[in-house]
Amino acid sequence: MDATTFEPAMRRALELAARGPAQGVNPRVGCVILSPAGEIIAEGWHRGAGTAHAEVDALAQLPNGASRGATAVVTLEPCNHTGRTGPCSEALISAGVARVVFGTDDPGARSRGGADRLRAAGVELIGGVLHEEIEGFLADWLFAERHLRPFTTLKWAASLDGRTAAADGSSRWITGPVARERVHEQRAAADAILVGTGTVLADDPSLTARCADGALREHQPVPVVVGLREIPDEAALRRHPQSLIALRTRELGEALHELQQRGIRSLYVEGGPTLASALVAAGLVDEYAIFLAPTLIGGPRTATLDLGVGSIDEQRRLELRSVERLGDDLLITARPVGHADEPGT
Amino acid sequence: MDATTFEPAMRRALELAARGPAQGVNPRVGCVILSPAGEIIAEGWHRGAGTAHAEVDALAQLPNGASRGATAVVTLEPCNHTGRTGPCSEALISAGVARVVFGTDDPGARSRGGADRLRAAGVELIGGVLHEEIEGFLADWLFAERHLRPFTTLKWAASLDGRTAAADGSSRWITGPVARERVHEQRAAADAILVGTGTVLADDPSLTARCADGALREHQPVPVVVGLREIPDEAALRRHPQSLIALRTRELGEALHELQQRGIRSLYVEGGPTLASALVAAGLVDEYAIFLAPTLIGGPRTATLDLGVGSIDEQRRLELRSVERLGDDLLITARPVGHADEPGT
Repeated sequence: MDATTFEPAMRRALELAARGPAQGVNPRVGCVILSPAGEIIAEGWHRGAGTAHAEVDALAQLPNGASRGATAVVTLEPCNHTGRTGPCSEALISAGVARVVFGTDDPGARSRGGADRLRAAGVELIGGVLHEEIEGFLADWLFAERHLRPFTTLKWAASLDGRTAAADGSSRWITGPVARERVHEQRAAADAILVGTGTVLADDPSLTARCADGALREHQPVPVVVGLREIPDEAALRRHPQSLIALRTRELGEALHELQQRGIRSLYVEGGPTLASALVAAGLVDEYAIFLAPTLIGGPRTATLDLGVGSIDEQRRLELRSVERLGDDLLITARPVGHADEPGT
Repeated sequence: MDATTFEPAMRRALELAARGPAQGVNPRVGCVILSPAGEIIAEGWHRGAGTAHAEVDALAQLPNGASRGATAVVTLEPCNHTGRTGPCSEALISAGVARVVFGTDDPGARSRGGADRLRAAGVELIGGVLHEEIEGFLADWLFAERHLRPFTTLKWAASLDGRTAAADGSSRWITGPVARERVHEQRAAADAILVGTGTVLADDPSLTARCADGALREHQPVPVVVGLREIPDEAALRRHPQSLIALRTRELGEALHELQQRGIRSLYVEGGPTLASALVAAGLVDEYAIFLAPTLIGGPRTATLDLGVGSIDEQRRLELRSVERLGDDLLITARPVGHADEPGT
């Protein structure tokens, strides 16, 4: 049977998926069950970690035996993993489903393999229906599953000569209000914000996403602090609407993996030059948001420190994605050359 | 009589002015002599230092007495200065000219005052005819006369984090071929290029303006080196098609004034961070041409050093004039905030 036959049902499954929560360890998944005649007889979606997966949620709408010979159309390859719920592949086999149509493969190290399991049980499988749309819809979750870390955006605001502060450390203001508002939008779009303990001790940032009038935005990123130093009890971060995650390590790869394991898919880094440079040097930055103000500062406070570039052949080439004027300032968005994954585009 | 009456004659004078040489200590000036009936009876223009000024050139076309009662229409206020030639104000008075119409005032410290001298002799004066056009036409010369230094453009090519080389000093290439070609165009558009002795000793640059195929462009800027160190006999600069000017000083204000005295109206600075930073700190930069490549380098080789910015209130604010994509690179053109003069726009 032609895969395009199932596109309308898949589009409905995608609508159902969008009802689920956009954050967390689990992806948003939707599922419809079609009778052997091709009519929708049940719908389901995943409502977040610990609740039923989409396939199980849909099957639960049907009386015993009603799914025998049916087709399950599900946005993501059914999982093969026993976590807080059982594997969906098993549930579909037990329900007597004859065919499973899905949009994209599950890249999860522990959850993948559902298609193989179903095939081994004699279920017909059709993959890749509305593949691009579903890859786009799940982009941040797929990236995090594939790379075992969040999609990581490094932001800094600097002068045209690459300084983030004057010699005495003062930096208010280098960029103007339009650029600063964009920073708050970008914070609100991320699952979490990362800084180092050095920034907490030096600047005591609140790391909230605020509107121009100072009011909190609806979505607040989780504040994350990495480093070995103690975070003071009176730190502003401790009054953040989301609970602080303190990662007491200097191993940034491990820290980012830990965040992915906690369901953080996208990370916005606002640390100082030490953290920024360590992430660049470790190849852990997926996107750069560089705000440049039309000003010159000179002196010692550079946005980056040593990046391990001894000779010009080792420079870290980027690809410009956009250059925007924001008031008097510029926002340069760039990614490492050859960066394969493209969420959030 | 209405000033607009003389616009056609002034437009002709401007055409004549454009026949003169675009470089040198003297401005390009054109002049037409009108009979009392308003008909053009003579034309003249200045052909460069040491030759007749435009007014004298025009008067010389006429037989004795023919200029009595005539109107001289001249692009620039007639000079009041005895140099290699006598003052034009005197020549006009002697010729019996009844009226002088001019486009813009002569700002020259030694040459100005011609209008006052003419008025005192009973000559009618009408100034400001085609004023804006003539200010635009003479922009670089007017700037240099008014500020007693050339219009100075500081150029550097850096990574997005403001580095001009890797830690070992290697810098080929940070920017791509399109940006490098633009640099050669900008060199060709300047009267002179300035570097410090440090750059000569470190890089041995040729400072020629070349085409993409390596051929020399038609106009070559004069190479200028500032600093106390000796320039090696074998330096590439010594083979430049224009004679090298070596200014053995560290006083940049004096050096720039000396260049203006030698007829350099526009200067393109390609020195290293030491020269660049000293010019910025001294407030001697009129325009910035900052080429930014999409790359990160980090480390010690910053485009600027200390600019005397101790606190953020002292940052040197610029105004962006344009942001261009040149291949993979960006060219940011900016001027100091509140910079009054606008040649070359």
